[in-house]
Amino acid sequence: MRITVIGAGNTGLAMISHLALAGNEVVVYDNSSEVVSALNSTKSIRCGGAINDNATIAFASTDISEAISNTDLILIMTPAFAHKDLAARLGASLQKEVPIILNPGRTFGAMKFEYYFTQTNKFLKPIIAETQTVIHTARRLTANKVHLIAIKDSVEVATKDPDKIGEIITALPEVIRPYFKPAKSIIETSIGNVGMILHSTPLLLNSGWTESPEFSFRHYWDGITPRIANYLEKLDFERLSVAKALGSDLLSTKDWIKRSYHSEGETLFECLRNTIAYEIIEAPNTLEHRYIFEDIPYGLVPLELVGINLGIDMHYTTLIIDLASALLEVDFRENEYDLCQHISYYLKNRK
Amino acid sequence: MRITVIGAGNTGLAMISHLALAGNEVVVYDNSSEVVSALNSTKSIRCGGAINDNATIAFASTDISEAISNTDLILIMTPAFAHKDLAARLGASLQKEVPIILNPGRTFGAMKFEYYFTQTNKFLKPIIAETQTVIHTARRLTANKVHLIAIKDSVEVATKDPDKIGEIITALPEVIRPYFKPAKSIIETSIGNVGMILHSTPLLLNSGWTESPEFSFRHYWDGITPRIANYLEKLDFERLSVAKALGSDLLSTKDWIKRSYHSEGETLFECLRNTIAYEIIEAPNTLEHRYIFEDIPYGLVPLELVGINLGIDMHYTTLIIDLASALLEVDFRENEYDLCQHISYYLKNRK
Repeated sequence: MRITVIGAGNTGLAMISHLALAGNEVVVYDNSSEVVSALNSTKSIRCGGAINDNATIAFASTDISEAISNTDLILIMTPAFAHKDLAARLGASLQKEVPIILNPGRTFGAMKFEYYFTQTNKFLKPIIAETQTVIHTARRLTANKVHLIAIKDSVEVATKDPDKIGEIITALPEVIRPYFKPAKSIIETSIGNVGMILHSTPLLLNSGWTESPEFSFRHYWDGITPRIANYLEKLDFERLSVAKALGSDLLSTKDWIKRSYHSEGETLFECLRNTIAYEIIEAPNTLEHRYIFEDIPYGLVPLELVGINLGIDMHYTTLIIDLASALLEVDFRENEYDLCQHISYYLKNRK
Repeated sequence: MRITVIGAGNTGLAMISHLALAGNEVVVYDNSSEVVSALNSTKSIRCGGAINDNATIAFASTDISEAISNTDLILIMTPAFAHKDLAARLGASLQKEVPIILNPGRTFGAMKFEYYFTQTNKFLKPIIAETQTVIHTARRLTANKVHLIAIKDSVEVATKDPDKIGEIITALPEVIRPYFKPAKSIIETSIGNVGMILHSTPLLLNSGWTESPEFSFRHYWDGITPRIANYLEKLDFERLSVAKALGSDLLSTKDWIKRSYHSEGETLFECLRNTIAYEIIEAPNTLEHRYIFEDIPYGLVPLELVGINLGIDMHYTTLIIDLASALLEVDFRENEYDLCQHISYYLKNRK
């Protein structure tokens, strides 16, 4: 099948290689003309690590219309902050209904994507799906070279209408299909992402340490003290309350860590400290980082909006969004009005 | 004259020695029976440093009625969090109208003290005054020994009624009178304290660093980065706006640092970095510290309350109080209702 992969970053390049090596015709879109030139010059990607081979692509383009022409599937592999613009451009360019999958969606990502898509396209109704996380853990080395560290199992995928989740699984290319499983509802993929709990708050509560030119620290092991972990548990409780009000019982961040890393502990702090994989992870050295610019506006902001509309006390979430907005001098809630309209539509129409 | 000094801590012990050495009859109140026993066993205090001599006190007591009996002046030398309880107990015990001076008052300290005093005493109307800071920089070595580092000049003193500021200066014992000057209004002593800007916010925005068992940092030089200093300037703007709305043009924290330390700089960050006296000051290693427990409830909370009542945008102040309350699990605004009543009374009745 012909597949368009949008975004040739760390996980995009891994996905492109994985799909192309299985015989799919892969077209790549990237907004960097340098990246596109490098890919077109050889049409080849060297993939090392968990898959070790040279992949061949059809072609790459910076023109979205060209990249999606005659495609059977569109995989979005960009950070969430690119979704809005991509949705509007896809809406303006798409000629037929092909599935669009966000890898991952982040909080209500697929719903927001659909909303912005419909702003530029009133006729087509493609299935827009989202995953809970990416299946590839990978690092891009050059535009033509990627190191694939691992492929995750059981990554949840969902679309707004729970009846169509099976259809999305069927639409996935055969070679990657085994790594996915259907979520019970889109709430699991949207609100199941724990990045919004673990990323921005420890960074904001260590702002000086983060931006000090002389000091660095390990994000989980140094930056999260018992008091900060206690705050994170309260923040997490708000996340779980929103999911529960929408009909989904999600794992707490503490239990997600226990399941993912086989760690033990009574409290979130103990679980974090007993997770050896977290020991070496350094904190960013700036607040101008996706831990803030992705996890706040595409994680906590939509969570807060839905929570408040459901009458849930979102105090701890609100405080972190307010603090980030004040420190960074950014209105992280600026798209809330649009978001609100589309989420209300979803909440009223869901089955 | 007979003077009762309440609180025999760092600055209390310095004040006691200073007054006693000038021939005043000094009675000491402290809530620690160990401290009182030690003082009564010798009735002598060894004072070193800026004044070098042995002072003799009349007696010490843990009984407030006994300590204030037949006194001519009461000096309160405790942290602000002891004021409420002391005010109520003085109200219940005081037999005649003698001036009461808080060293220092903190935000609206004298007004709050008066309010709690009147809860237990409807008949006496003593002058209740406050200073902007303490005149002695000192460290207590034992209950009977103090090191007096320096005596500050030009410490402002004020009472609610601007017409009575002269009366308060006259009521001060002659030996310490030269170190004080009258404030134009109580707004200058109350809102002129910059501790509420410089203490709690950098600590909260470095919570993990503060409470990390392995790391320490210099409060001003490491903990306050350009971004945090930028936040402090916005917080300070709210403080100055409240003072201005109440009729006082106060120095900004930046200009106060320039004046106090002869430092230069365009921004608050530059001024802090150019203040050598700040270089060695270490940050506390816990959030359970007076930088939070004094500067939030006795600094920012009353400031916020008055600001909001005056229609001033207090967003940055509110955020810090909310953050401290959430992290420490303390309702720092719990006494706001009482406070509100008394400050409204002051605002309506001031000349």
